[in-house]
Amino acid sequence: MIKLYGMSSPNVVKVIIMLEEISADWSMNRVRLLDGEQFTDEFLALNLNSKVPVIVDDEVPGDPLAVMESGAILIHLAETRKAFLPTDPTARSLVMQWLMLQMSTIGPMFGQYIHFLRFAPAGSDYGLARYRAEMRRLCKVVDQRLNQAEYLGGKEYSIADMATYPWIKLIYGDLVEREIAPAVEGWLKRIGERPAVMRAEAFSAEIKKQDVKATEAATPAQFDRIFNRQSAA
Amino acid sequence: MIKLYGMSSPNVVKVIIMLEEISADWSMNRVRLLDGEQFTDEFLALNLNSKVPVIVDDEVPGDPLAVMESGAILIHLAETRKAFLPTDPTARSLVMQWLMLQMSTIGPMFGQYIHFLRFAPAGSDYGLARYRAEMRRLCKVVDQRLNQAEYLGGKEYSIADMATYPWIKLIYGDLVEREIAPAVEGWLKRIGERPAVMRAEAFSAEIKKQDVKATEAATPAQFDRIFNRQSAA
Repeated sequence: MIKLYGMSSPNVVKVIIMLEEISADWSMNRVRLLDGEQFTDEFLALNLNSKVPVIVDDEVPGDPLAVMESGAILIHLAETRKAFLPTDPTARSLVMQWLMLQMSTIGPMFGQYIHFLRFAPAGSDYGLARYRAEMRRLCKVVDQRLNQAEYLGGKEYSIADMATYPWIKLIYGDLVEREIAPAVEGWLKRIGERPAVMRAEAFSAEIKKQDVKATEAATPAQFDRIFNRQSAA
Repeated sequence: MIKLYGMSSPNVVKVIIMLEEISADWSMNRVRLLDGEQFTDEFLALNLNSKVPVIVDDEVPGDPLAVMESGAILIHLAETRKAFLPTDPTARSLVMQWLMLQMSTIGPMFGQYIHFLRFAPAGSDYGLARYRAEMRRLCKVVDQRLNQAEYLGGKEYSIADMATYPWIKLIYGDLVEREIAPAVEGWLKRIGERPAVMRAEAFSAEIKKQDVKATEAATPAQFDRIFNRQSAA
């Protein structure tokens, strides 16, 4: 049994996709970030960094294992369930490389862009332009890769695709025009048609409704806490 | 034989530490980022994302393997050389979790802070305050971890420490006061006294001299290219 702590963000969706792909027995514990539930002692015992997703996996030897960081969760599940991560050193490394590019750059830079677009004060033009340019550049990098291979790691669908899909889907055709990364379209379609991905997205859509409602009702102080910033007041 | 493409940044230093720790037969190919060498066809064949470090490892079965992304390089070397990454699922996952926190958050957020501090135009106050707060928060997270365990992954020094050490060293006692993260001091000392780390830092210091010289001589157009930004002119 795996317990997932999360909400509807791309970093959580990637874990839900993996849990569905491996037919895990799992349940979601929605963490109300705007209410500060990530700062409770109970949550800090799972993740000192106060972020979702976290899983608690009781199917490992010894005590149940709490795993923070979506990339580490994907690797843990792939290794312990022997799925979606090749064992051949070259094929394995290619999956790890594209997983890492998502973790180190695609996620953080897309995330900064969305932050500056929606939550930064007026006049934060430099940050907005910086992260917009990075997001566009990264879409072209992914596009170039998908001109070389059907999936990010190579011939086979893997945890690298699961990690990247929710982030690209969030912006493609909306914050970034399809035309700058045409090869991405077929890849999104191939992944989006997988039954496990369809189940994961349907589940996340329901959670998202609750998150949108909470965001609409949030106070400035709640945003300041979640963004670790001094009150703008 | 391993060829490393890099310069003196923390993401390259972590790989040099690992190469020294495993006593690899390696050599450095310095990439002149300010001269745009990361955009040549030769370099793009190694890394579509145009970043260092990259290694080319010819000790794998089949063709020599190019590995991008410092975290993926550490994992590849740890797995193929069977060093600094435990095999027990719980111990292994803890190393992966702290490695991922470095890759997804410590590196990117410290990097954004240094960018806004040194390279952003006047008036970019929101970004500067945002990343400064994140950097400080992350130092406290690492401090809390080091109150629980001697190393980030637990009892044993691992690739998680190698990844995090150069980033923390860059800011600790300088951009961040020691007092907010006192447990970090002993950890830095323990790692800094390792012979492999001392060799890696001595090597990097020589490369850094060349990088500093290149930075001092760089034109605004060179900075714009390296930062993927429109000319400020």
